[in-house]
Amino acid sequence: MFLLSQATSSFARENSIYFAMNPDITRERENATFNVEKLTHILDGGIEKTKRRREIESLVISDPDFQSEDLNFLSRSERYDAAVKKSAQMILKLREHGISDPEEIYCYKSVFRGHHHEALGLHFVMFLPTLYTQCNKEQFKKWVPLAESLKALGTYAQTEMGHGTHLRGLETTATYDPATQEFVLNSPTITSIKWWPGGLGKTSNHAIVLAQLHTQGKCHGLHAFIVPLRSMNTHIPLPGVVVGDIGPKFGFDEVDNGYLKLENVRIPRDYMLMKYAKVEADGTYVKPPSAKLTYGTMVFIRSMIVREAGRALAKSCTIAIRYSSVRHQSEIRPGEPEPQIMDYQTQQYKLFPLLATAYAYTFVGQYMNQVYHRITGDINQGDFSELPELHALSAGLKAFTTWTASEGIEVCRMACGGHGYSRCSALPDIYVNFVPTCTYEGENTVMMLQTARFLIKSYRQASAGHQLSGIVSYLNESEGRLQPQSVSTRPTVVNINDLASLVETYKLRAAKLVELAAKSIQLELQKRVSQEDAWNNSAIDLVRASDAHCHYVVVKLFAAKLGEIGDTGIHSVLSTLALLYALQGIQQHSGDFLQTGLLSVPQLSQVSQRLKELLAQLRPNAVALVDAFDYCDEMLNSVLGRYDGNVYEHMFEWARRSPLNKTEVHESYHKYLKPLQAKL
Amino acid sequence: MFLLSQATSSFARENSIYFAMNPDITRERENATFNVEKLTHILDGGIEKTKRRREIESLVISDPDFQSEDLNFLSRSERYDAAVKKSAQMILKLREHGISDPEEIYCYKSVFRGHHHEALGLHFVMFLPTLYTQCNKEQFKKWVPLAESLKALGTYAQTEMGHGTHLRGLETTATYDPATQEFVLNSPTITSIKWWPGGLGKTSNHAIVLAQLHTQGKCHGLHAFIVPLRSMNTHIPLPGVVVGDIGPKFGFDEVDNGYLKLENVRIPRDYMLMKYAKVEADGTYVKPPSAKLTYGTMVFIRSMIVREAGRALAKSCTIAIRYSSVRHQSEIRPGEPEPQIMDYQTQQYKLFPLLATAYAYTFVGQYMNQVYHRITGDINQGDFSELPELHALSAGLKAFTTWTASEGIEVCRMACGGHGYSRCSALPDIYVNFVPTCTYEGENTVMMLQTARFLIKSYRQASAGHQLSGIVSYLNESEGRLQPQSVSTRPTVVNINDLASLVETYKLRAAKLVELAAKSIQLELQKRVSQEDAWNNSAIDLVRASDAHCHYVVVKLFAAKLGEIGDTGIHSVLSTLALLYALQGIQQHSGDFLQTGLLSVPQLSQVSQRLKELLAQLRPNAVALVDAFDYCDEMLNSVLGRYDGNVYEHMFEWARRSPLNKTEVHESYHKYLKPLQAKL
Repeated sequence: MFLLSQATSSFARENSIYFAMNPDITRERENATFNVEKLTHILDGGIEKTKRRREIESLVISDPDFQSEDLNFLSRSERYDAAVKKSAQMILKLREHGISDPEEIYCYKSVFRGHHHEALGLHFVMFLPTLYTQCNKEQFKKWVPLAESLKALGTYAQTEMGHGTHLRGLETTATYDPATQEFVLNSPTITSIKWWPGGLGKTSNHAIVLAQLHTQGKCHGLHAFIVPLRSMNTHIPLPGVVVGDIGPKFGFDEVDNGYLKLENVRIPRDYMLMKYAKVEADGTYVKPPSAKLTYGTMVFIRSMIVREAGRALAKSCTIAIRYSSVRHQSEIRPGEPEPQIMDYQTQQYKLFPLLATAYAYTFVGQYMNQVYHRITGDINQGDFSELPELHALSAGLKAFTTWTASEGIEVCRMACGGHGYSRCSALPDIYVNFVPTCTYEGENTVMMLQTARFLIKSYRQASAGHQLSGIVSYLNESEGRLQPQSVSTRPTVVNINDLASLVETYKLRAAKLVELAAKSIQLELQKRVSQEDAWNNSAIDLVRASDAHCHYVVVKLFAAKLGEIGDTGIHSVLSTLALLYALQGIQQHSGDFLQTGLLSVPQLSQVSQRLKELLAQLRPNAVALVDAFDYCDEMLNSVLGRYDGNVYEHMFEWARRSPLNKTEVHESYHKYLKPLQAKL
Repeated sequence: MFLLSQATSSFARENSIYFAMNPDITRERENATFNVEKLTHILDGGIEKTKRRREIESLVISDPDFQSEDLNFLSRSERYDAAVKKSAQMILKLREHGISDPEEIYCYKSVFRGHHHEALGLHFVMFLPTLYTQCNKEQFKKWVPLAESLKALGTYAQTEMGHGTHLRGLETTATYDPATQEFVLNSPTITSIKWWPGGLGKTSNHAIVLAQLHTQGKCHGLHAFIVPLRSMNTHIPLPGVVVGDIGPKFGFDEVDNGYLKLENVRIPRDYMLMKYAKVEADGTYVKPPSAKLTYGTMVFIRSMIVREAGRALAKSCTIAIRYSSVRHQSEIRPGEPEPQIMDYQTQQYKLFPLLATAYAYTFVGQYMNQVYHRITGDINQGDFSELPELHALSAGLKAFTTWTASEGIEVCRMACGGHGYSRCSALPDIYVNFVPTCTYEGENTVMMLQTARFLIKSYRQASAGHQLSGIVSYLNESEGRLQPQSVSTRPTVVNINDLASLVETYKLRAAKLVELAAKSIQLELQKRVSQEDAWNNSAIDLVRASDAHCHYVVVKLFAAKLGEIGDTGIHSVLSTLALLYALQGIQQHSGDFLQTGLLSVPQLSQVSQRLKELLAQLRPNAVALVDAFDYCDEMLNSVLGRYDGNVYEHMFEWARRSPLNKTEVHESYHKYLKPLQAKL
């Protein structure tokens, strides 16, 4: 994908290093103890899936229309322009290639986007699906063809300046006027201005607007309305619609996240999505049958975010670990050549636990996706029984995985030293594009507290003698086993080399921390504060309990995955990774394990020692383990993470294409520096 | 500083909220229990200093030449252009105003820059100072006037593509040719290309180049050379000089960090800086008297970085805490109005420990600066005795403070929810501008290991019976008090409400972790590995020991500062902050304190409980404590951090100025979307 500049390619030829594979990275691959290709199949879910994925990826990679300048060299307006262009091309190409399966579309777009975004993202991810699920028959007939033919370019306008995660607080109003049979939409306060929706600023001509429905003098809460924003002919904003871009952000440069201020905008009655709730012509409100229906979508999106956490971390590890295998620096033994930086224990300690985490989250994402599809089947048959648990789990896991993955990306970036700070490493882009997941689709702390609410409720049920099932069934054991233990009572049951034993330890930690949080609430209540204040005054403990619960689930799922793997070499290396993941979590949270009496001080020293051994044990397989993620160079778009390991010559080449190098002398010299010199 | 667009200012007037102070934030200020102004004086170092700082700041703020568009709205080339323009203006203005004291220049530039950078930064910070200290008399006479008049615009070219922190590995060569009495400079490999120096790409016409000196067939290591890069008349690069911008980065958009490839560039013999080392006309090398001289500069720069860690965190806390006082969200008690988000315990737990850290680092920065100046006096009198300790301490503290501050800035940003992700919050800029401190001036892990080397050396000296003095004197106690203790032996000496007792506890933790690291090395040596491998195989423990040492120093210095404060109200609130800082550190590292037997499990529960009380206790003073940092709105440049708390109306106004809003319909609609619609 790199367009060689004349100067650099000749430089590369002169030094005749251009086409050769870096010998360091070749040696790493030769030393691997397992079959990389087979592991890739496991990650993809089967050999056929790997094959099809690669076919689709090569469609994009080999397509001359998609060879373009690095987005980092463009201004924001140019980047937006490029995103719209590619989105338009992509829609036509997907039709040409006959790709229509959602997984395959996702795969196609993943390459195409690199770390960047499409202009019509929310049209496909939110606007169309909402039409599919919330239109009644007549509405479906009208709107779906308009949306599918992109005559109606849509987005989903929920978040306002004043309210995000707390949906009930949204202030936009839709007031029914029976005289004209219209809804009148308004942004009554400055905080009610819609803010953040992707594609709202410049791209969309329609939006599904979430607004408080008022009819017959009564407010019936949030409902969804189709609001035309711009003329379908001229794209000029319609009267009463104040719409625009919210300005530059940390990342997402090419996306026109927008604002929308509605000033007495009138829409026909049947622009309210009426599959469930209705407003009749006279203004009578008919309420929907169940409120739980929207849970499903949230669960699905959160499971996708967990999957993205795995992917973002996998990409970051690929870059940092490959670079660490070709970067030589300083010395371990005097007089010897500079070692690969991956030989430093501190570097291994930064990167290998993150590598293990990337694998863990990938497996958790797969699990959540399976459960979602199974439960969706149940829901369609009217069985909502598993939904609360899954909803609670998805909230916590979304928060747990996005927090750790975000931090992990930055650790990977800094593990690449100064060059990690260059946009050519791709790591800044991975970070700024991923880190908003900590905030959107439910702010992480709020998510953790949602999971905690479920845990405390379950704990109380168990305490009251109810038998819990599912993932929280461990709380059944509370009464018997969770007696306060002195740390000096050394448990001999934990075997730090046995993953099953560690899963059990994580489980008991979660149980104890849930109990601790419940007791904190109890203690507050004894001070005669209200339930609500007692909850808020225990929030630190509640988040800690949720965190421990999620950590347990991740370790458990990682261990469970090992049971599915037949290949000995792969089973062995993944077992090492899983053990590393579990033990590093124990070391990081050693206070919890000591405080709850689950581990003794000597055991903790053993954990530290064992961790060092595991790092050394993983060292020869590190590059192979990131290779197995199978991100091609075009998807990584990182000079440091190149498969061939030839980073320096390509960094030089990349730099020479920087816009500031278009002229030898920048105009600012003539404008400011020369006149300044004359004055001094 | 905000240029109001017509539409928004009328919107603001209509809602008549424009000029009023947000009542929430006013109430916060009324509830403070101490005198903010007096605390500002303490932070500045005296009432006179506060006065003078404000005078200087107002010179910039009131200067119409410095009212300009938000840099976030400009392309990179425009930003570079703006930076050069402002740098040029500033130089003239500083002369006009007669500001020449380095502290006052720093202050002037701090406002001017906001979070951004000057184009000639390295000219003043590295080029000129190096000329001052390393030129011999003749060189001084020639170069200093050229540099002071900016005829010679200089930078400092040390880092190469292949080597950063490990200076000995630098590959650029300067080979003396006695025939012409010139040095011939070369970049012999691709990794030897100079990479990263600020101002190197487009601005500078000279650089001080660090290169391996070869003469009479022998290499004498790194020396500094003045290398002309561009014509002083035309600014065109000179023959053999391949120079340019290294391309876009995570931040520092307006800086032209550069590359420099030298191809047989010849410079006269006396372009080598010869105050200490020399090469005579015939090529004879004369070595410098002492190698320790450069330590001083490193210590100074690292003390400045610690100070910047305090400032970056102080700014971030100012923004996040002010915003948390005006942002209302969700509910604690049903039916009541939405609370300020600062009322949530989780929000307090995110922000208040960081506020305490900002104060801690500010005091540590002040201390290091004082020590530096004291020791510089000693050095000038030939006394180097304290230098190794200060050098080691400055390395560790630089790493310790920059890591935690970087993480803290992101915590502040995310504590502002979605709006923290907008560039209008200023938090993304603070982060990307600060986070490179983790890498430059010595990569943090390497710095931690440098401090560890000093600690282990000191520990061994103490073990051998030498009496240590200074900050590591606590290692003297090793033999007596650091016997392994069972965790069940509950120490009763620690009083968690007494700061002095906590300082002692931190000290013992450091002592134990240094001992643990030393024992790990010992254990490795018993396996018959070499000293160097034993060191590398214990690196995790060594970093942990350094971290504990630095943490001890910070807690100790914070406690010591309290002793200087007479005002009761301020003493009280700072004591609460210091206690919060110390206890939160214990909670975060509870495993260490339990493992070393310094705290018992019940004590740890008390710590958790006490922490919650301290959060509640600080709540009424939070806004006042950030006000005391006294960053004016122009310096913060943050919509969320405004002193008046009127965030939403200004966010809307800021967004409307986004370049994407220059036209109602973006050209990409006509170029791509309309044609696409026609095809479907």
